[in-house]
Amino acid sequence: MNRVPLEKKILGENDRIAASLRERYRESGTLCVNLISSPGSGKTTLLEKTLDALPRTQRVAVLTGDIQTENDATRLKRFGFPVRQITTGGTCHLDASMIERHLADWSLNDIDLLVIENVGNLVCPSSYDLGEAAKIVLLSVTEGEDKPLKYPSIFFKSELLVITKTDLLPYVPFNLAAAEENAKRVHPGMEILRVSCTKGDGLHEWLSWLERRRQAQAPETQALV
Amino acid sequence: MNRVPLEKKILGENDRIAASLRERYRESGTLCVNLISSPGSGKTTLLEKTLDALPRTQRVAVLTGDIQTENDATRLKRFGFPVRQITTGGTCHLDASMIERHLADWSLNDIDLLVIENVGNLVCPSSYDLGEAAKIVLLSVTEGEDKPLKYPSIFFKSELLVITKTDLLPYVPFNLAAAEENAKRVHPGMEILRVSCTKGDGLHEWLSWLERRRQAQAPETQALV
Repeated sequence: MNRVPLEKKILGENDRIAASLRERYRESGTLCVNLISSPGSGKTTLLEKTLDALPRTQRVAVLTGDIQTENDATRLKRFGFPVRQITTGGTCHLDASMIERHLADWSLNDIDLLVIENVGNLVCPSSYDLGEAAKIVLLSVTEGEDKPLKYPSIFFKSELLVITKTDLLPYVPFNLAAAEENAKRVHPGMEILRVSCTKGDGLHEWLSWLERRRQAQAPETQALV
Repeated sequence: MNRVPLEKKILGENDRIAASLRERYRESGTLCVNLISSPGSGKTTLLEKTLDALPRTQRVAVLTGDIQTENDATRLKRFGFPVRQITTGGTCHLDASMIERHLADWSLNDIDLLVIENVGNLVCPSSYDLGEAAKIVLLSVTEGEDKPLKYPSIFFKSELLVITKTDLLPYVPFNLAAAEENAKRVHPGMEILRVSCTKGDGLHEWLSWLERRRQAQAPETQALV
């Protein structure tokens, strides 16, 4: 079975489209981030809190991926920003061509921050460049501190780790220091934030991170918050 | 890109090996179950509780899959049963050839219950038959009640849903009835158990389910517990 060369060809084609998307984001000054985690780590909830905190005048858009259902787009649309669901119908990750297709009638010149919420999967999405400026991995405290060592690829490729659901720390056997140490073993330069969407802890730091990252992408645009 | 025919070929080859494994399990009267869930849903912890509860005289063996690390095998070996780690090195699921290879020097005639713990991934493992008698999907209450609708394939193909970490119900916005209803929408005949490994709730029902299922596979062998 000639699988590896075919995977290389698929990834090569993906990389070509991703490079073209990256060039378009650069031209329009759009910061594109790609959120990746296990199912249920809190990507959609973090996005709800993010959209809720941003002034409606901000030029933010979301593409949210799932295998089935439009649930996440429904949850996110109520904040008034453009949100589009990408339903993969079985595919375990988003790829660059899906992004290109779903951006077709959006003008990137009108978008300062484009957030992509990937399919819930800590493995496969790490292989697919979507042209994003940064991958961001979420890990909830209920999942265990060993995950960076078990799933190193996504932790190695992500600029930022957001440790979510810290409000549950009193009730779960999660060693926060060990989790952070494991992440740094895989990716020494990784930035790490601790967030509880329920209590609001760390949301300010998260919004500041996004703003700082966006300024780096397009220093002349208006501040997000 | 000619991806679909190649995937069919790979899955066809996998199915051929899985069928041969299934025949071997049948001949030896071995019950093989395949545990699948997101990372951090508690597969290894459930197995720890299971092995701890079983008499050492029982003929139970475990194959545990991960992308990297031997952590889970280390955790499980201390109960005295044969345990072998399958490290996939990047692959997002176990396939039948990995099982065949790792069983090579084990005699199935000496194993009444073979538990396979798949790679933590709610998507890809559902496509790979390992010759098991039953797939079992775990869903922790921290992941959200919408998961059966978002990841229908694995819920459709699993005989049993184990809802884990029920001790965390007071602290998370998880609607147990809705989760079970969503699972039944995808798979009307699905059996469902609720388990807290921390408190011990539901473990007796889980062990009884395994025993009942094993009796169905090989009615003449000695009871597990």
